[in-house]
Amino acid sequence: MAFTPSSTSLETLEALDTDPAFALHRGGKLEVRSTVPVRDADDLALAYTPGVARVCSAIAENPELAKDYTWVSNVVAVVSDGTAVLGLGDIGPSAAMPVMEGKALLFKQFANVDAVPICLDCTDVDALVETVVRLAPSFGGINLEDISAPRCFEVEDRLRELLDIPVFHDDQHGTAIVVLAALKNAARLTGRSLGELRVVVAGAGASGVAVSRILLNAGIGDIGVSDSKGLIYRGREGLNSVKEALARDTNRADMRGSTEHALAGADVFVGLSGSTVSEQAIASMAPGSIVFALSNPTPEVHPEIARKHAQVVATGRSDFPNQINNVLAFPGVFRGALDVRATTITENMKVAAAEALAAVVGDDLSADYVIPSPFDERVAPAVIAAVAAQARADGVARI
Amino acid sequence: MAFTPSSTSLETLEALDTDPAFALHRGGKLEVRSTVPVRDADDLALAYTPGVARVCSAIAENPELAKDYTWVSNVVAVVSDGTAVLGLGDIGPSAAMPVMEGKALLFKQFANVDAVPICLDCTDVDALVETVVRLAPSFGGINLEDISAPRCFEVEDRLRELLDIPVFHDDQHGTAIVVLAALKNAARLTGRSLGELRVVVAGAGASGVAVSRILLNAGIGDIGVSDSKGLIYRGREGLNSVKEALARDTNRADMRGSTEHALAGADVFVGLSGSTVSEQAIASMAPGSIVFALSNPTPEVHPEIARKHAQVVATGRSDFPNQINNVLAFPGVFRGALDVRATTITENMKVAAAEALAAVVGDDLSADYVIPSPFDERVAPAVIAAVAAQARADGVARI
Repeated sequence: MAFTPSSTSLETLEALDTDPAFALHRGGKLEVRSTVPVRDADDLALAYTPGVARVCSAIAENPELAKDYTWVSNVVAVVSDGTAVLGLGDIGPSAAMPVMEGKALLFKQFANVDAVPICLDCTDVDALVETVVRLAPSFGGINLEDISAPRCFEVEDRLRELLDIPVFHDDQHGTAIVVLAALKNAARLTGRSLGELRVVVAGAGASGVAVSRILLNAGIGDIGVSDSKGLIYRGREGLNSVKEALARDTNRADMRGSTEHALAGADVFVGLSGSTVSEQAIASMAPGSIVFALSNPTPEVHPEIARKHAQVVATGRSDFPNQINNVLAFPGVFRGALDVRATTITENMKVAAAEALAAVVGDDLSADYVIPSPFDERVAPAVIAAVAAQARADGVARI
Repeated sequence: MAFTPSSTSLETLEALDTDPAFALHRGGKLEVRSTVPVRDADDLALAYTPGVARVCSAIAENPELAKDYTWVSNVVAVVSDGTAVLGLGDIGPSAAMPVMEGKALLFKQFANVDAVPICLDCTDVDALVETVVRLAPSFGGINLEDISAPRCFEVEDRLRELLDIPVFHDDQHGTAIVVLAALKNAARLTGRSLGELRVVVAGAGASGVAVSRILLNAGIGDIGVSDSKGLIYRGREGLNSVKEALARDTNRADMRGSTEHALAGADVFVGLSGSTVSEQAIASMAPGSIVFALSNPTPEVHPEIARKHAQVVATGRSDFPNQINNVLAFPGVFRGALDVRATTITENMKVAAAEALAAVVGDDLSADYVIPSPFDERVAPAVIAAVAAQARADGVARI
């Protein structure tokens, strides 16, 4: 036995034997494989010494050659410090590893991006930034994952500034892209433009902030963002700098009070908070309302309850219609960026990804189909093409 | 084109088209693959959310479970700062990547160890140590590679102290294990015991120091170690702490002068210096001498010249008999250590690896066969078994 049974609860011990998730995870979910043959001394002399020395020398002469003659331009680091893992919170780097392995697996499966899970034993912003900068020569992109807010904002901002490869905090931008795609389709279905919509976003963590930002960029009518203390408004005491900026750009009517209070007459609810919203609050929304109850595994309001009052309902779950799943975005976003060796991922590239994702639904649009399935094979090629083209249009493509 | 032709020499530009090493390296040599299927939503719900959360929670409860339910206990980081790459010197982290990828490929091919190349953009000892410590939760072992001496000694020593997973600087210990194995067989062939032999080691970098240390531990008669200033002796001015320690433990006769001077009457020459040794110096060695001219690609003395005077000649090259190749050691050493989840790699484990490697030659021992071929399929299983057994005997195995 590799572990001390005394420190493992009876419930976990039983799950180890009976829960298929543990059976599947046994030994991990990834392997590293060679893409070139090494059958004999001749192969070895090319893949390793002495042949490899000629490749090293050429790269030393012209560092750009590393992009052609190593795996670096195809490989993304999935970096976490384990401080905000799923709904589990700060469980540390070792316990975060199964999620990062899963992410790497999805990168490969959905867009043939090689990804390496890197769980770091540090949580200080300076230490995280410094470590990722030191790792950067080994990777073509950095996918930040499950780093708690508000540290995640500064970590991403500083890395984007320091590195000339894509840096993308998936909890923020992956979610934001898929929400925007689904909302575009929901607005189309209900015959409204984004500019007409008043949105309430519950949650001002990584995903709540990024969703609010992408919706503002997309020209949404107005947004109210709430955190555990209620709506964020200009001048509210104790706001961190990220929330202070949100206060400036949102809540035009300067509303105060709870999320539920703000929902009265609102067109859209986006739940990213882990809290609950009552049926009455959903019922108080404007006619033809749109409810995205995205907390997982327990949505803010049960989708069947929401559906009694709202025209479109989406969740984060695979067992209800309209699953808002980041896997619709991040594999294609990185593949598209890597394909043109983009130096960064611009806001336009995120919007282009959302538009491409929304367009996959096409004429099949219905209340139960505002976003494609993660297993729809049209998704990744559409996102890849849109992101690559937008990178070129934005002048951030190297090839 | 991903590179600027103006910064690439004409010679390199031509090689890109004609040298098979470049053709083989195009796009890199590695990929990350999933070991579990994700065909549909049910698979996704186990490998990723919500199933993965149960595995994360269990590991948060008992961190030891990470070894069973993630890939960590099978994955080694191949870490370099690119300061001493092959014979090319300090070419930096990007240009070092093809070697680290090659190493990862060999780990997989020869012992089914998953390995990830990590080239770091820092060279300060504190920064290297700090970074690897932060990365450590993601890996089951650390293979240090191509870090220049004397920094490599402190980096390894401190990481061994700080981490409870195997840390192994292959340039040191991989070379040392294979040299010891070959020397044991050469001594057997020439009818002498290690205790009778006087050895001259040319080179006091990573491999020279480690070879000297393993030979001392194995009970060699006497060793003289030389660097670019000649033999190292007690009281020589300007010695760093590692050479000062070597001066205490070697050169019993307190000889002074050049490597060639020291070779007169010596039984064994181990060249790890990149310099040359004259035919006269080889001819001046004791009868039945043993010459390991290991500099690559140019041995200290041409093996055919050496063979005129010496009874056994080995090189680092695959096109002469007796290739001293680290790949005979490092894959099996790590596989053996990982298999028992060793907390470290002890001196005994290295010696056990050397003995197992030497034993593969068995009764086929001859002047041209003192060490097995890298493609001998008996090598890895023998090294793995010996290292795992010794880890248990030394009390450093977790299972």
